[in-house]
Amino acid sequence: MYHENIRTDLAAEIKEFRKLTENDGFYDETFDKDGIKFREVRILNDSAAKKIGKPEGTYITVDFGTAFEDEAVFESAAEIIAEKIRTLVGNDLEENILIVGLGNSNLTSDAIGPETVEGLIITRHLKNHLPEIYSTMNLRELSALTPGVLGTTGIETAEIVKAVAEKTKPSIIIAIDALSSRRAERVCSTVQMSDSGISPGSGVGNHRMELSKKTLGIPVISIGVPTVIDTATLAYDTFEVLCSKSDSKAFTELVEKGVITYRTVCDVLGDSSANMIVTPRDIDVLVNKASRLLAFSLNMALHGDLTPEEIASLIN
Amino acid sequence: MYHENIRTDLAAEIKEFRKLTENDGFYDETFDKDGIKFREVRILNDSAAKKIGKPEGTYITVDFGTAFEDEAVFESAAEIIAEKIRTLVGNDLEENILIVGLGNSNLTSDAIGPETVEGLIITRHLKNHLPEIYSTMNLRELSALTPGVLGTTGIETAEIVKAVAEKTKPSIIIAIDALSSRRAERVCSTVQMSDSGISPGSGVGNHRMELSKKTLGIPVISIGVPTVIDTATLAYDTFEVLCSKSDSKAFTELVEKGVITYRTVCDVLGDSSANMIVTPRDIDVLVNKASRLLAFSLNMALHGDLTPEEIASLIN
Amino acid sequence: MYHENIRTDLAAEIKEFRKLTENDGFYDETFDKDGIKFREVRILNDSAAKKIGKPEGTYITVDFGTAFEDEAVFESAAEIIAEKIRTLVGNDLEENILIVGLGNSNLTSDAIGPETVEGLIITRHLKNHLPEIYSTMNLRELSALTPGVLGTTGIETAEIVKAVAEKTKPSIIIAIDALSSRRAERVCSTVQMSDSGISPGSGVGNHRMELSKKTLGIPVISIGVPTVIDTATLAYDTFEVLCSKSDSKAFTELVEKGVITYRTVCDVLGDSSANMIVTPRDIDVLVNKASRLLAFSLNMALHGDLTPEEIASLIN
Amino acid sequence: MYHENIRTDLAAEIKEFRKLTENDGFYDETFDKDGIKFREVRILNDSAAKKIGKPEGTYITVDFGTAFEDEAVFESAAEIIAEKIRTLVGNDLEENILIVGLGNSNLTSDAIGPETVEGLIITRHLKNHLPEIYSTMNLRELSALTPGVLGTTGIETAEIVKAVAEKTKPSIIIAIDALSSRRAERVCSTVQMSDSGISPGSGVGNHRMELSKKTLGIPVISIGVPTVIDTATLAYDTFEVLCSKSDSKAFTELVEKGVITYRTVCDVLGDSSANMIVTPRDIDVLVNKASRLLAFSLNMALHGDLTPEEIASLIN
Repeated sequence: MYHENIRTDLAAEIKEFRKLTENDGFYDETFDKDGIKFREVRILNDSAAKKIGKPEGTYITVDFGTAFEDEAVFESAAEIIAEKIRTLVGNDLEENILIVGLGNSNLTSDAIGPETVEGLIITRHLKNHLPEIYSTMNLRELSALTPGVLGTTGIETAEIVKAVAEKTKPSIIIAIDALSSRRAERVCSTVQMSDSGISPGSGVGNHRMELSKKTLGIPVISIGVPTVIDTATLAYDTFEVLCSKSDSKAFTELVEKGVITYRTVCDVLGDSSANMIVTPRDIDVLVNKASRLLAFSLNMALHGDLTPEEIASLIN
Repeated sequence: MYHENIRTDLAAEIKEFRKLTENDGFYDETFDKDGIKFREVRILNDSAAKKIGKPEGTYITVDFGTAFEDEAVFESAAEIIAEKIRTLVGNDLEENILIVGLGNSNLTSDAIGPETVEGLIITRHLKNHLPEIYSTMNLRELSALTPGVLGTTGIETAEIVKAVAEKTKPSIIIAIDALSSRRAERVCSTVQMSDSGISPGSGVGNHRMELSKKTLGIPVISIGVPTVIDTATLAYDTFEVLCSKSDSKAFTELVEKGVITYRTVCDVLGDSSANMIVTPRDIDVLVNKASRLLAFSLNMALHGDLTPEEIASLIN
Repeated sequence: MYHENIRTDLAAEIKEFRKLTENDGFYDETFDKDGIKFREVRILNDSAAKKIGKPEGTYITVDFGTAFEDEAVFESAAEIIAEKIRTLVGNDLEENILIVGLGNSNLTSDAIGPETVEGLIITRHLKNHLPEIYSTMNLRELSALTPGVLGTTGIETAEIVKAVAEKTKPSIIIAIDALSSRRAERVCSTVQMSDSGISPGSGVGNHRMELSKKTLGIPVISIGVPTVIDTATLAYDTFEVLCSKSDSKAFTELVEKGVITYRTVCDVLGDSSANMIVTPRDIDVLVNKASRLLAFSLNMALHGDLTPEEIASLIN
Repeated sequence: MYHENIRTDLAAEIKEFRKLTENDGFYDETFDKDGIKFREVRILNDSAAKKIGKPEGTYITVDFGTAFEDEAVFESAAEIIAEKIRTLVGNDLEENILIVGLGNSNLTSDAIGPETVEGLIITRHLKNHLPEIYSTMNLRELSALTPGVLGTTGIETAEIVKAVAEKTKPSIIIAIDALSSRRAERVCSTVQMSDSGISPGSGVGNHRMELSKKTLGIPVISIGVPTVIDTATLAYDTFEVLCSKSDSKAFTELVEKGVITYRTVCDVLGDSSANMIVTPRDIDVLVNKASRLLAFSLNMALHGDLTPEEIASLIN
C-alpha cells in the first residue's frame, strides 16, 4: 500500500498519484486554446476532499510551457490565465481585492509571491487620494500586502492578513505563493489557480494556519507556480519509473516488503536532506519571469478593458 | 526672513538652522564615550515643538563615524546605540515589542528599515511554538513587520501597522526608517532615536499618517539613519556657506531682495529635480552596513544578557 | 571667467556650457523622428576638441523621454538608437564585435554597463560550438565582457579589455557605461553614442586609461546613459539660473570677484560631499529599465533582420 | 559493474565511491584541529589519477560544519582554511596572485566565486598608484577577475584568464568556484582546496577548457565549496542506501540485470531534469556566508601578519 502522499501542491498531480477517478467525486477535464493546455479539476464533495487531502473547490492548471522563450506564447498564456482568474473572481469591478504575496522574498525559490506583487497596478490609494483621476480610468480597487514569513516576523501570516483585511475590508483576497510539484516538467511552467484558499508552505511540509473563507471570512483565491520538487518525491518517483520499465519482479518484491515507500525514502534522505530542494539551475531567472507573467495576467484580469499595451506601459 | 524650513529629519539640524536655544524650550547636551559622540535634544514644551516643527520628546543622535572601517568603533557605537535604545524602551523584558521596517525595500536609499528587520532575532513565534526552548533563553518577545509603502500596497503604512498591532498587542512599537539630513557628513554616519513617533517620508516631503502613541495607542520609538540629502537643501546650503565666506555685500543684498531663499532654490530645481536626491555614490554598500549596525544594536538592546559573540552568531 | 568645466559626459552639454558654435569647429544638428528627439554633435578638428575637452568624433544623443511609461515610445526610441548604432558600427555582419559592460555592478548608479550586457544575444560561442545552428540564423558574432572596476580588480579596465581583445580579435569594441549629466531632465532619459572611445569614470572625476582606437588598436564605439549629476554641478547651476532670473547686480559682482565659481562651489562642498552624487530616488528601477532599452536596441542594431518580437523572445 | 561515475567535484567522495585505497596510489589522512575536521587526499601517480578521474595533486577538504551558527567555529575554520591555502600557495609575499571568481554571479548556486572576490583586499593598484602607503602595510600584491561564464560572454573562461594573466603576470592563480558534492551534509559546509587546477563546471557536466599550469603556464590553486548535488546522484544514492539496509535480494538482482545504474537513473530523469539541481532551500543565505568565509580566509592567508580584527575592518 504505497498510497501515502508524495509532496506536491498540484491537485491534478495528487489525483493522478492516488489513481482517483470521476467516480471518487471529481470533475476533471483538459482543454486546449491557442496551443496552451489547461485543465480543470473539481473536488466535488467532502469524501473526494478526504481522498485527495485538499479542500473542496475548483483547481485550474495552465501549462504555459515555452512562454519565456516566445513572446506570442507568453501573451496567449497570459490571456488564458487572466480568463481563468476572472472565472474565479468574477467580473464585477465594484468588488475590491487585496492581493497577498506569500513567501520569503530573500529566498529565490520562495519569492514568486512578493515579486508578483511588485508588478501589479495598485489603485486603492489612487481612489482615495486622486478620485478625479481614478474615476476616469477603468480600474478596479486593488491593494496588496507582502506579509513575510513566520520565521522573520514571528507572526502567523494568516494573522497579519486577517488583521489588515478587517481594516481595509476587501471583498476578495487573492494569495500568490510558490508551490512544489511532483514532476520536473511542471516546475516554473505551470500555474495553479483555486477558489479553495491556501495553506502557506503546505507543499513543503511546514503546515501553517490556512488562508481561506473559513479562517478569514472572505473568499480566498489562490494562485501559485511550482518552483521546487521535494527531494524524497524526486527520488521515490525516479525509482518507481525505473522499475516500471523493467520486467523484473524485484520491484514488486521491494514494494511488498515495504522496503521502498515514500516514507523509507524520506528516512534515508534524513536530516541533512530535509532542508534540500530540487530546483532549476537558473531558478533566479525563472522566478523573475514567472512573476512577470503572473503580474501581467492579474493586471489584465482584474482591471477593466485595458489593452496588453496599456498594461505593459503601466507595469513596465 | 529665510527661516522657512530646509529639509532634514534630524531635530538637531533643524534646531541649528533655526538658531533655537535653551531659552526657546530645549535641552541640548553633547556627550562623548569611547570616542563616539552623541547628543540629546529634548523638545520640552508645545511652544518649542511649534518652533522646531517636530513633536515634543527626546531626540538622541549618535555619530558612528568610521564604524564601517573599524571593527572596534563598530562595537563601541553599537553599545552606545543599544544603551540609548534601552533608555527609550526600558529594561523590562516582559514588555513585548513590534519592530516595523518602514520604506521601500526595492529602492536602495529607502531600504534601511526592511534590511534592519532581516538582521533581528525574532522570538514571538518561538515563545508560542517552542515554549520550553524559549524559556531557557534570556530573550524578549520580539515580532517584526515590513509593511511596504503606500505606492505599492495602496494602504497607508500606519493603517497596516495599527491593524497588526491590534491583533498582536505589543506594548511598544519601534519603527526603523531611512531619513534625510542637511549635512553630507551625517549621511550614513549618524543615527537618530526618538520617543516621539515618526511620520514616514516626512523628511522628503511625502507627508503620511504618522506612527505615534496618538495614532496607534502604543508608545512608538523611532530609529533612523539619514541616507539622502534633499537637492534644494544642498544647493541652498552651499550658497549660504559660499557667501558667508565672502566679505561681499552681494549675499545680503540677494537675501534681502528675496532672490535667494529655500523656496526660490526649489523653484529653480523644478519638477525634473523633485524626484532627485543627493546620496553617497556607494549607497548600496552603506545601507547594508548601516542596517547591520542597527540590527546588531537592537539585538543587544532588546534581548537580555547576550554577549556580542552570542548575538553575532545568532544574526550571522 | 567662469568657463572652467562643470562635470558632464555629454558633449552637447559641454558645448552649450562653453557657448561654442559652428565657427569653433562643430557640426550640431537636432532631429525629430516619431516624436523622439535626437541630436548629432561632431567635433570636427583638433582645435574644437581642445575647446570642448573631448576627442574629435561624432556624438549622438537620443532623448528617450517617456519610453519607460509608454511601450510605443520605448519601441520608437529603440529603433532610433539601433539606427544610430548601425550608423557608427556599420552594417557588415562579418564584423565581429566585443561589447564591454563598464562599471561596478554592485553600485546601482554605476551598473548600466553590466546590466545591459546581461540582456544581449551573445553568439560567439554558438559560432564555434554549434556552427550548423549559427549559420541558419541571421546573427552577428558577438562576445561580451564585464571587466569590473579598478578598486575591486586591481587591474586597469583598459588593460583587461586590451588583453582579451588581443586574444579574441574583435573588429569593433562597443563600451557601455553610466555617465554623468548636467541637467536633471537628462538623467536616465537620454543616451549618448560616440565613435571616439571612452575614458571610464571621466564624467565623475576618476580619470582612467581610456578605451579608444589609440589605446586598443581597434575602433571603440561608446554608449552611455547619464545616471547621476555631480553635486557641485547641480549647486553651481542652480545658483546661475537663480541669478539670471534676478535683475540684481549682485550676481555679476559675485562672479567678478571670483566668489562664485565651479571651483569655489567644489571647495565648499568639500571632502564629505566628494563621494556624493545627485541621482533619481528610484534609480534602482530606472537603471534596470535603461539597461533593458540599451540591450534591446543593441540586439536590434547588431544582429540582422530580427523582428522586435524575435528579439523580445531571445532576450526575454 | 556500477563503477561509472556519480557526479561530484570532491576527490574524497569519488575515492570513496570507487572504493580506492592507498594501494591504488593514494595518500589519505584525516585530521582534527580545534574541533574542525580536515582531510588530505593526494593522488600520487598517473595510474591513480586515471582511476579517480582527476589530475595528480593534493586535495584538501575542510569541514566547516556549524561555522555559520557559531562565530568561534567560524574563526577556527577560517584559520585552518587559511593555513591550508598557505600550504598550497607558499609564504613568499613577493609572489603576486591573481584570484579568479568563476561562475555566474546571477545564479545563486553558482555565485560563490564572484561573491568571494567582492570580499577580498585587492592591492595591485595600490602598489602602483600609492606605493608609499602600500609599502608601509604588510600586504601581498593581489588582483582579481570575475570573467563570467561562456553563455553570457561567448568567450571560454580560460581564454579570458589566460589573456589577462599574460598581461599582468601573476606568479600564482587561485580560482574560486561553486562545486557539486554527492552528500547533502557537505553542501555549503565543506571547502576543497587543490593544487591541480580546475575545470569550470566539471562537476555538473559542462566540460570546459581547464585552468591549470598546463593550459595557463602558471600554477593554479583551486578553492571550491559544494552548493548543489546532481539530481541523478541523489536519486541513485538514495536507492543504494535503501537497498543496502534491506536483506532482500531484489537489490542485487536489479543491479545485476543493469536495471539500476547511474546511467539508467539519468535516463529516467531525462531532459526536464537535466537542468535541475538539488540545493539547500536557503541557498541564497548560505552562498553569502560561505563567500564571506572564503574571503576572510583568503585575506588571512595571503596578506602578511594581519590580525582577524584588521581583516574584519578591511573587508567589512
